[in-house]
Amino acid sequence: MTVTFRPLIALGLSAALALPTIAQATEPEDAIRYRQSALSVMGWQMGPMGAMAKGDMEYDEEAFATRANNLAAVAHLPWEGFMEGTLRGDGHGVETGALAKIGDDWAGFEERQQTFEQEAATLAQMVKDGEAFSALRAQVGAVGKSCKGCHDDYRAE
Amino acid sequence: MTVTFRPLIALGLSAALALPTIAQATEPEDAIRYRQSALSVMGWQMGPMGAMAKGDMEYDEEAFATRANNLAAVAHLPWEGFMEGTLRGDGHGVETGALAKIGDDWAGFEERQQTFEQEAATLAQMVKDGEAFSALRAQVGAVGKSCKGCHDDYRAE
Repeated sequence: MTVTFRPLIALGLSAALALPTIAQATEPEDAIRYRQSALSVMGWQMGPMGAMAKGDMEYDEEAFATRANNLAAVAHLPWEGFMEGTLRGDGHGVETGALAKIGDDWAGFEERQQTFEQEAATLAQMVKDGEAFSALRAQVGAVGKSCKGCHDDYRAE
Repeated sequence: MTVTFRPLIALGLSAALALPTIAQATEPEDAIRYRQSALSVMGWQMGPMGAMAKGDMEYDEEAFATRANNLAAVAHLPWEGFMEGTLRGDGHGVETGALAKIGDDWAGFEERQQTFEQEAATLAQMVKDGEAFSALRAQVGAVGKSCKGCHDDYRAE
């Protein structure tokens, strides 16, 4: 853990690191499993939209709308699981791709979270506005790009 | 799998069994992991509210509101993962507590889902309405009862 990460807790700014309920007794293992579960749920929702965008699955307006709404609903959930002591090299013994860089560059990681949440919210709004699949497909690309950008920077290969 | 379960698919009523995207190529393993992940996320959200309701954690209005909203947002997600071929004894080789009874009594299982979703939505609405903790605590009990009722009936010990 680094000096740039610890102060977030030390200064009582843990809200920037995780929701207030970091106050709950949480084992690193539980936080890691939680965030991995939340990210899996996001991946499940994203999957069909990505497949439709790529043409690997026929576009189904209702299914796409459900996925877009579900993705937007869960987009903010995983991040609180990236608590102090839960990254790679923190000695918790759980396999995780979360690089220590997340702690070294929390502001950058948080910016990635916000970008993803915004892209997911935009996609859901576009569905609500009844936009054409061509536009939705482009936005799925933007959401996917935000996923990849964060994975490239903060997740182990 | 039983005759009461198969027809849901055979008759094209798979929406009653899972969201339309059951059309996506889904391995039983993936559906099981998805629902387990979604249920874990629900458990993570429920945990602090249960602890506050029991007095094991000090009541934190903001944290409670966040948990109540998150729980309501994900309450509908896990169910599509209970697809045909993903229950106990279906030979998928994944450890799951989902009893074959879910397939034998899909209507009953679906009723449990709806009860849970309604209780979670009520809790979120009560928070929005600024109800007192004493009332919120009682509703947490109602949500927990809906979890337990379903687990008692459809989940292996």
